Amino acid sequence: MRCEVVAIGTELLLGQIVDTNSSWIGEQLALAGIDSHFQVKVGDNFARMAAALRQALARSDAVICCGGLGPTQDDITREVIAHIMGVEMRRDEAIVEKIRVMFESRGRAMADNNRRQAEVPLGATVIPQMPGTAPGLICPLGDKVIYALPGVPYELHEMMLGTVLPDLRQRSGQTAVIRSRILRTWGQSESGLAELLADRIEELDGRGNPTLAFQASGIEGIKVRITVKAEDEAAAEEILAAEEAGIRELLGDIVFGVDGETMEHVVVEALRARDRSFAVAESLTGGLMALRLTEIDPAMAVFRGARVAPAERSAASAEERARAAARGIREAFGSDFGLAALHVEAGDAGPSKTVALAIASAEAERTTSIALPGDRRRLRNFAVISLLNYLRLTLSRA
Amino acid sequence: MRCEVVAIGTELLLGQIVDTNSSWIGEQLALAGIDSHFQVKVGDNFARMAAALRQALARSDAVICCGGLGPTQDDITREVIAHIMGVEMRRDEAIVEKIRVMFESRGRAMADNNRRQAEVPLGATVIPQMPGTAPGLICPLGDKVIYALPGVPYELHEMMLGTVLPDLRQRSGQTAVIRSRILRTWGQSESGLAELLADRIEELDGRGNPTLAFQASGIEGIKVRITVKAEDEAAAEEILAAEEAGIRELLGDIVFGVDGETMEHVVVEALRARDRSFAVAESLTGGLMALRLTEIDPAMAVFRGARVAPAERSAASAEERARAAARGIREAFGSDFGLAALHVEAGDAGPSKTVALAIASAEAERTTSIALPGDRRRLRNFAVISLLNYLRLTLSRA
Repeated sequence: MRCEVVAIGTELLLGQIVDTNSSWIGEQLALAGIDSHFQVKVGDNFARMAAALRQALARSDAVICCGGLGPTQDDITREVIAHIMGVEMRRDEAIVEKIRVMFESRGRAMADNNRRQAEVPLGATVIPQMPGTAPGLICPLGDKVIYALPGVPYELHEMMLGTVLPDLRQRSGQTAVIRSRILRTWGQSESGLAELLADRIEELDGRGNPTLAFQASGIEGIKVRITVKAEDEAAAEEILAAEEAGIRELLGDIVFGVDGETMEHVVVEALRARDRSFAVAESLTGGLMALRLTEIDPAMAVFRGARVAPAERSAASAEERARAAARGIREAFGSDFGLAALHVEAGDAGPSKTVALAIASAEAERTTSIALPGDRRRLRNFAVISLLNYLRLTLSRA
Repeated sequence: MRCEVVAIGTELLLGQIVDTNSSWIGEQLALAGIDSHFQVKVGDNFARMAAALRQALARSDAVICCGGLGPTQDDITREVIAHIMGVEMRRDEAIVEKIRVMFESRGRAMADNNRRQAEVPLGATVIPQMPGTAPGLICPLGDKVIYALPGVPYELHEMMLGTVLPDLRQRSGQTAVIRSRILRTWGQSESGLAELLADRIEELDGRGNPTLAFQASGIEGIKVRITVKAEDEAAAEEILAAEEAGIRELLGDIVFGVDGETMEHVVVEALRARDRSFAVAESLTGGLMALRLTEIDPAMAVFRGARVAPAERSAASAEERARAAARGIREAFGSDFGLAALHVEAGDAGPSKTVALAIASAEAERTTSIALPGDRRRLRNFAVISLLNYLRLTLSRA
């Protein structure tokens, strides 16, 4: 089963937008065990779009095209596909209605233009997921198929996961399953991990299944990906579980989470299980901590809040100031723990910065200092994860 | 003059790396007035790379391929190009020496593998810029040309700017320049903008230069891009300025910024010019406001701070509560303005949510209510921009 990706939009060729959709789709196809040999970007031009889609169809079983489903005159993906299918367009009045309701719920009137989005090539079906105003399409051509998805990433993701991937899997008749699991680590370099796992990797290389791979994810730490091919879900699950157990034995509490579990997930769940809460003094991290925590704890049951303000000036040492900030925020929000990260300005000429971390509770106050990379964005992200990891280890080692 | 971009690497197809090189090259070509109709990604596979390069050569005058010039066995770009040129490879001993010196200067010995990087197809020349161990190549084929560049972005950029673009410009005999300007808008849908600008677009369509295009950028509003082709920089600038003035007349203060100016930039600069400051009560926005503002105002001279905490419960109306929160945060931080956005929970079953915005100053308190999309991430992003836009309009209309 081969599937080609065609990204549509002159703005992609002009570099006004980076085409992240194709990469994401490529990743999803790989995980589903579907080959993808080419990805093509083409502008909003009828003849060239038709040429790209025809070629993709000729060398693949399925084509996913993204973009060009908007309401304006330069959005012509629908027309090009109808032309390739050799069919007319019909207006789907149910879709017109859906778009109208969407605009009304936002207190706006639907423009006439938006009716164009409800045009569907005869023989094509509309993808049920429709989080925006652009319907996605499944367009069969003999035993092949073109999927048309909107270019807006969250709309595309929903349609891809909800309809396109299940449909592709069914078409491919694929019986072997490929599954992977990611172990997320914090506190070791990639080469450090490679050394800890060297014997195990060599052993697996001889067998070929499962496989281990590292993915440096920058501010999210380094991931160890276990990939397995097995007869069915249950067999894959069993191998993954055994491999995970072995790796955890080798790496210890460097492993902080699995798959989608972020550091903030892990910490919030650990606190929730202990019925404890915390608050954060954000000077260095500028709101990033609060943002990440409120995404996963919107009710603010565990994460009680944050104050974003410049660090207080004082003659005390950095660790003492961080400790005072942690104590102060704990009192201000009446939480069990108070956290603070402080950038130590003095003598930081090099490429890395020294950051003081502090955790205050009713029982104890702890501080430590770490060296982090220097540019602001990475410094903040590393500070957030390092501070949360500090709390994670404080809890687990208590 | 047409130039196609072929990005090489299986990791690009698998989505392990996002192909930012093609976007960047596309942008450079557009600025140089060189057409680029297709961009293709292909894996490290001889037959498929050859097919992609042959097709690119057939439909373009020049091809830029990036990636596959490393020292390992799967780096086969050199071999594929030699095959297409129908020539043998020669080893360039001067390049071997250059690579050896590069390793030595880092205190390392050159691996044998690296000799492969000095293989050059007969008839090709080496690009003089060589910031890494991979030499770039200029490979003539009749009156066409393939440029081979390494996939490492900073190496590619240096070769592209130092050699490829000047070479392409010379080949094309191009003297005209293409320039564009983006006007950023907030407060109108794409179809609404299209209606406001319909007459102007029709007028320009007849002439073909300059052109207008819309780019929906989701949470950053909708952009109107003016693109012009002119004899020289000065002529382009003049047309852009005239077109911008005309569009601003049609759209009014929907236009909030130009090119890279984000909403937070515009608001912070407007306040800085007036020597005023502000602080924000973040319940709905959960730290996102602070994060975006501290990125551009790290000294917190204009943006004084934020408090992230759950909204206070009260029997008052949403707008009254937002007003109280704005007043409270202004007092807490001693700033000129206090801002708050509050989500009105009651009766919000639909896909959109009602949000109350408030601005408090010593002179006045203002509130308004708006409908925003329902999922948390977009709700927060829209709330941040809407609230900042509310402050922008308050300032400009004062």
